[in-house]
Amino acid sequence: MIIDIHGHYTTAPKALETWRNRQVAGIANPAETPKASELRISDDELRESIEANQLRVMRERGLDLTIFSPRASFMAHHIGDFQVSSTWAAICNELCYRISRLFPDHFIPAAMLPQSPGVDPATCIPELAKCVEEFGNVAINLNPDPSGGHWNSPPLSDRHWYPIYEKMVEYDIPAMIHVSTSCNPSFHTTGAHYLNADTTAFMQCLTSDLFKDFPTLRFVIPHGGGAVPYHWGRFRGLAQEMKKPLLKDHLLNNVFFDTCVYHQPGIDLLTRVIPVDNILFASEMIGAVRGIDPETGHGFDDTKRYIEAAHIDPQQRHKIYEANARRVYPRLDATLKAKGR
Amino acid sequence: MIIDIHGHYTTAPKALETWRNRQVAGIANPAETPKASELRISDDELRESIEANQLRVMRERGLDLTIFSPRASFMAHHIGDFQVSSTWAAICNELCYRISRLFPDHFIPAAMLPQSPGVDPATCIPELAKCVEEFGNVAINLNPDPSGGHWNSPPLSDRHWYPIYEKMVEYDIPAMIHVSTSCNPSFHTTGAHYLNADTTAFMQCLTSDLFKDFPTLRFVIPHGGGAVPYHWGRFRGLAQEMKKPLLKDHLLNNVFFDTCVYHQPGIDLLTRVIPVDNILFASEMIGAVRGIDPETGHGFDDTKRYIEAAHIDPQQRHKIYEANARRVYPRLDATLKAKGR
Repeated sequence: MIIDIHGHYTTAPKALETWRNRQVAGIANPAETPKASELRISDDELRESIEANQLRVMRERGLDLTIFSPRASFMAHHIGDFQVSSTWAAICNELCYRISRLFPDHFIPAAMLPQSPGVDPATCIPELAKCVEEFGNVAINLNPDPSGGHWNSPPLSDRHWYPIYEKMVEYDIPAMIHVSTSCNPSFHTTGAHYLNADTTAFMQCLTSDLFKDFPTLRFVIPHGGGAVPYHWGRFRGLAQEMKKPLLKDHLLNNVFFDTCVYHQPGIDLLTRVIPVDNILFASEMIGAVRGIDPETGHGFDDTKRYIEAAHIDPQQRHKIYEANARRVYPRLDATLKAKGR
Repeated sequence: MIIDIHGHYTTAPKALETWRNRQVAGIANPAETPKASELRISDDELRESIEANQLRVMRERGLDLTIFSPRASFMAHHIGDFQVSSTWAAICNELCYRISRLFPDHFIPAAMLPQSPGVDPATCIPELAKCVEEFGNVAINLNPDPSGGHWNSPPLSDRHWYPIYEKMVEYDIPAMIHVSTSCNPSFHTTGAHYLNADTTAFMQCLTSDLFKDFPTLRFVIPHGGGAVPYHWGRFRGLAQEMKKPLLKDHLLNNVFFDTCVYHQPGIDLLTRVIPVDNILFASEMIGAVRGIDPETGHGFDDTKRYIEAAHIDPQQRHKIYEANARRVYPRLDATLKAKGR
């Protein structure tokens, strides 16, 4: 089985964006704020948006199952207050849940959180609990910078975040560390902010002893770990100077990288440098880079082709495609096993 | 000849730091502000600080010449106002100049600028002009985020920066895009902020048409280009979606990467992905990562070993070691030629 652990609902019916635009307009002009119940998207519309897009591509590429979460760039936690984020997260999570019910063999949900700048992350627990307990979510996306590029939250190692971690440990779910749209003109969202956040999050873990406090906490760093594998020697050297343990002992029981790296040399480096047990297959299609690579004639985000061509053996490939995901996402494994998969 | 284009004066006599601490204390308490003339470092002290450190390592590794600039993390443009930065930059640049006079065969200076948050970059021109015209500097270090991790300056493509670019073009000097210490607790200075800045700067160039306005402007992105070569497919794909030219036409006449990547797989990726004409040898020793790699028994920052082992031919290696530096830094080439080198 091939499990893509990083898919977002980037192809939702237009009605979702229209509703969100009304919600955003309502921040300045409360009379315009729509009710959640005013958003109506039928099962047929959901089906069509998936069958023509993600499911079509999954079939073309031979991917079996996607861990599916709300569109990352639309989370936009910097917009409005906690109430705005709360209503918006509930709507987006419900859509991913419905898709997982419409296509139970192909999609399993992961939740966005109703984060808001300066607000205690503990406020996210009710939505998180609902998504896990009622909607069968197997993971969350945690935004280390809900400000959208101003980076004024404490580092991930700070106790600020511990209420989330305590709940993650209780449920035995991992978090993908994933920022949203940058509202800082210095940072292009998908070309700079996403990759910077990956590198930043990894370094926040490295400089801390977070995983001593939470030995079973698991973070997935997306986009191939930002700059981290390319600079693995730098990070090993920095850890050594800080008298930290070897990275494999210090971080690699808790930190994992996905394969959203959109060319063969990048995947070759990732599989050469990072232990195979820490690499999880992912494509983030249909996402930031949707075009055809003129150098290969295939989609930039068709990461399965790169994994197929990587210098790894079938057992290692099986770990990347399936076994690691079942280990890092135990609720995914349990759900699959309950179905005899 | 082997030219290291990225060296900082990280080993200055203690008196420099003491003077700086007094200067910083003087911001709150002006009576404590020292005069520049109160800093006294003899030629012997300078010689000793270099012979025992950078020059010793250069000899051990077989490096001939280093482009030498003030310590990057000490630039700290976020401290104080323009006057503070101006005095500090003048002091630091003069020290690098003196070292280039004491060791003319081994060091040639590059200048830091007296940048200050919110201050017009045009204010840096007098220091820049002095360093080029009187001190023989062959390049500058340009900080895209003088705030130290708050990223509230306009992107490098903004006209805000054009006065610097006009002077660079006039003098035909490149800029290394190099941030300084992070005062944002989210960002570790050398493990996150430096690499993020490299990626951010590249993306600011990619999304703009800066090099249409300045066809001969040249930027060196240090630390192997941050996350860029590892994600080269992503950047090619993003450029394609934005209807930009191919990256080689859009950016690679103007953007260059150094080899400060501290393990063999990273250098192998860099030399596989980035055209050899755009790669400049550098080590940034004695810098962020000073230890011995237990996996190799050699210094993490001994990047010459990685270049020696890379799958490139002698002509390509010559370009990385010398020819590209002479092309990208014409004033370096002229200085060397004047000495018959």
